[in-house]
Amino acid sequence: MNQPSKRDAKGNAPRDRIIDAARRLFGAHGFHGTTTDKLATAASVSVGQIYRLFEDKDDIVLAIVEKNVGDRVGEMREIFAAVERSEISMVEAIRAVARTALKGEDAGLFYEILAGACRNSSVADRLEPMIDVYRDGIQHLAASARPDVGQAELGAYVDIMMACFIGLGHRTAISRCVDIDVTSENAACVLIRALGLSPSI
Amino acid sequence: MNQPSKRDAKGNAPRDRIIDAARRLFGAHGFHGTTTDKLATAASVSVGQIYRLFEDKDDIVLAIVEKNVGDRVGEMREIFAAVERSEISMVEAIRAVARTALKGEDAGLFYEILAGACRNSSVADRLEPMIDVYRDGIQHLAASARPDVGQAELGAYVDIMMACFIGLGHRTAISRCVDIDVTSENAACVLIRALGLSPSI
Repeated sequence: MNQPSKRDAKGNAPRDRIIDAARRLFGAHGFHGTTTDKLATAASVSVGQIYRLFEDKDDIVLAIVEKNVGDRVGEMREIFAAVERSEISMVEAIRAVARTALKGEDAGLFYEILAGACRNSSVADRLEPMIDVYRDGIQHLAASARPDVGQAELGAYVDIMMACFIGLGHRTAISRCVDIDVTSENAACVLIRALGLSPSI
Repeated sequence: MNQPSKRDAKGNAPRDRIIDAARRLFGAHGFHGTTTDKLATAASVSVGQIYRLFEDKDDIVLAIVEKNVGDRVGEMREIFAAVERSEISMVEAIRAVARTALKGEDAGLFYEILAGACRNSSVADRLEPMIDVYRDGIQHLAASARPDVGQAELGAYVDIMMACFIGLGHRTAISRCVDIDVTSENAACVLIRALGLSPSI
């Protein structure tokens, strides 16, 4: 008997299999172009199990975004640690964060859930804490760059950096031939200056 | 006999009525939550007419985005003219553009079509020229602020400003209590410094 609720051969739990399959399918066919049937087949679970584990499709997209934000924050922590060990400069740190934003992996899903948040406050309420986790990471970066400024000034820097990192994905969304090296380097130099520092720092 | 192809009492052509109705309905219920039937009723046209005037729903969203970009570029031209007449400062000009981005009118639809562009290159190809029109406006603003720099440096400024203005909408998407005055003022001051200028300019 098929027991879809159990871990698969690789030890992945059904919830993770659904998230992974949804990531692939939503990325290729879009959120609304993926039926629950197709998702169940791809994740080797039953349709009922999807409904037991997730409230609705928004809930699955939010789970993917949460996982992505977690991954990105994990990468940022490694970057911070490298800055603290003086292995990389602040410009290099900001460039690394900009690179991730430009690579635009799962950017489509992020913009989709942002669109959902614009018209549905319950989606917005669930997205907000995830954005806050990412914002905390950026705030840490800005505070390392400018330990001398107060909370209000720091908040202004964080607003601009957040807007930039969220907005940079539009480049890769509309054009397949963005030079990620050049664009992330430029972004880092301009943002460093926005922070009131010299790009050589 | 009902003649839905004709202009209505206010003189609006069917295409404009469909765009206006779609803007309202997509904004309230989302792109995928709006059926063609409902759209036809709201626009006082037949379903057939929608299909004759637009290839598909993406085509309607692109038409809305095109109209919005046109409106925004129109507003930017007024802002440039005011800067050239020395009626407002460069900081005030950038703050005005940031305010529009933060107000986030139709931001949901923009993020939705950006999500579509991430997975569908034909959507990306149609979105690109609209983004380019907006980019030209921002480039004009950056060139007025820094007439002394070359194209490469100008391009770096424009990238950051574009990313910022596109990304700023996330604030209003996830939170209904953003202080637009404070955030746009901060954005303008930080961006002016990013451009290598003093906020008093």
